[in-house]
Amino acid sequence: MQAKLIALDWGTSSLRAYKLGAGGEVLEQRSLPLGVMQLPQAPHPVNGHPGSDGFELAFEQACGDWLNSHHDVPVIACGMVGSAQGWREAPYCETPTDATRLASTLQRVRSKRGIDVHIVPGVIQRSPLPNVMRGEETQVLGVLHALPPQAQAELLIGLPGSHSKWVQVVNGRIAHFDTFMTGEVFAVLSQHSILGRTQQPGSGFDGQAFDRGVQVALSVHGESGVLSTLFSARSLGLTGELSGAAQVDYLSGLLIGHELAALAHVQRQRRGDAQLPALVLVGNAELCSRYRRALGACGFTQVSLAEQATEQGLWQLAMAAGLITCPLPR
Amino acid sequence: MQAKLIALDWGTSSLRAYKLGAGGEVLEQRSLPLGVMQLPQAPHPVNGHPGSDGFELAFEQACGDWLNSHHDVPVIACGMVGSAQGWREAPYCETPTDATRLASTLQRVRSKRGIDVHIVPGVIQRSPLPNVMRGEETQVLGVLHALPPQAQAELLIGLPGSHSKWVQVVNGRIAHFDTFMTGEVFAVLSQHSILGRTQQPGSGFDGQAFDRGVQVALSVHGESGVLSTLFSARSLGLTGELSGAAQVDYLSGLLIGHELAALAHVQRQRRGDAQLPALVLVGNAELCSRYRRALGACGFTQVSLAEQATEQGLWQLAMAAGLITCPLPR
Repeated sequence: MQAKLIALDWGTSSLRAYKLGAGGEVLEQRSLPLGVMQLPQAPHPVNGHPGSDGFELAFEQACGDWLNSHHDVPVIACGMVGSAQGWREAPYCETPTDATRLASTLQRVRSKRGIDVHIVPGVIQRSPLPNVMRGEETQVLGVLHALPPQAQAELLIGLPGSHSKWVQVVNGRIAHFDTFMTGEVFAVLSQHSILGRTQQPGSGFDGQAFDRGVQVALSVHGESGVLSTLFSARSLGLTGELSGAAQVDYLSGLLIGHELAALAHVQRQRRGDAQLPALVLVGNAELCSRYRRALGACGFTQVSLAEQATEQGLWQLAMAAGLITCPLPR
Repeated sequence: MQAKLIALDWGTSSLRAYKLGAGGEVLEQRSLPLGVMQLPQAPHPVNGHPGSDGFELAFEQACGDWLNSHHDVPVIACGMVGSAQGWREAPYCETPTDATRLASTLQRVRSKRGIDVHIVPGVIQRSPLPNVMRGEETQVLGVLHALPPQAQAELLIGLPGSHSKWVQVVNGRIAHFDTFMTGEVFAVLSQHSILGRTQQPGSGFDGQAFDRGVQVALSVHGESGVLSTLFSARSLGLTGELSGAAQVDYLSGLLIGHELAALAHVQRQRRGDAQLPALVLVGNAELCSRYRRALGACGFTQVSLAEQATEQGLWQLAMAAGLITCPLPR
């Protein structure tokens, strides 16, 4: 089937490539460990010429064969590839923003094979504590496209990860967002702090330990803040009340619980309403399932999951930028 | 001058030894990098016999020559030397507790040279999130001894460190305490997270950056919790609003600010009173100076510093245990 767009989700550690058909459907996809912080180093011919630039080499590995078969198919990319350490810096768009605005500020880099790669800018919120994202804005657009207009009037979109983003959508635009470093804090504490020493990573997810951590964060003890409750992952181990095998998911629940308790608090303050907004989660399925479990405990009752958000977001941006024409009605 | 007591402050990474005179005054002191997690490994004669036990070897290095000169001087030790990984486990005393109770449960280990080492137990608080300490209880006793009885009626004693302890004293007894892992979280984030990558450790303390971090924690933005405000150490760098050189002390102020904001909140809740208690700080002078600065911003108006708390606490415990007799009035 004819390819209409090559879409790249190019982050810090990985590069995902999608070949999309006439209706935006995925014809073929690949995932390579060639993020902007781990580009190929060994020289290799690119389009018949000697090549040593890491971005060119990774680009060839990701989709060189597709471009050989489809010479004039447009290419779009989002993520850290547009950062100051990326292939070409795509300066941030300011909030509030939407697909039209983002699509009008794509940056182009001409690859050695003569094909332009269109790079999606990240988004910046210039609040007293500024917030930035790269890649998540594209996922948000993919989520929004799949929703009816009335659902886009007011919505919270959660993108859990090393740096979780919570994006407030108002009338189809990215109005505001918050960042929580929950995933990275979990990783560094487990790998490098005293809490990791007694953790015994087990065979599977321990839901009971996870829920216990969430409940501690939501309890009166959680009012001491995460810097204090963290120590319970050790002290409950010392008193024999928490096994080494349970400590990993207890810590995960504790951190996610603190994140979501703060999120619920801030949402209620901002909205001046005890009612929490409807929410869509996007990302790694296992992580989204943890967040969904904890969100219920925190009072978020309307939670759904979105899939294929990145490739659909890139498709929408390519259309808005005129790189591809509107597909036929399906 | 005649030695009356050898007092050891034996923690995870270091071993401090004090030779104390008839009034508890320090005649001589040493600090060795021989904590219970880094004991000597090379065999060496102990009291004329081959020795390979790490505790025996460290003990000899710390005070073997003192014991050669003063055969019958008693020895007392506090800290991780009494943990399950220590020389001899000294089971925790439960809160509430005081010098009399702690002194009545010293554990003895007979060293190869025939001298008993008396080990101070740690303290445990069996609350739903238990709390434990080893070594800090001795410092608290040293602080209390230097105060008039009326000041011991109600007092908060802060021991900043990797795991900061905040000990509530009521009528001269350790009634309650909290732990915050602030120091260790600062260390692992600076050494192993993305926040460390842009930090440029400078030549000295940047008070302005530190105060800025404290103010963020205390501001409305701090309500999102530390997992969220942490990201500002990166995003303010990206927007050019925080230099790499300022990021270290900004992060320090941010974390200490979150710790103290939570402490003030919990203190007010527990006391049912907006007034915060008088407070004494003990520990590393540079760290205590940071905490003192931030405590003022958090509404703690009566803050003083204590010195020589460990050696004076060990002296008090040795007296309470009858290892030494009351000194002559000075």
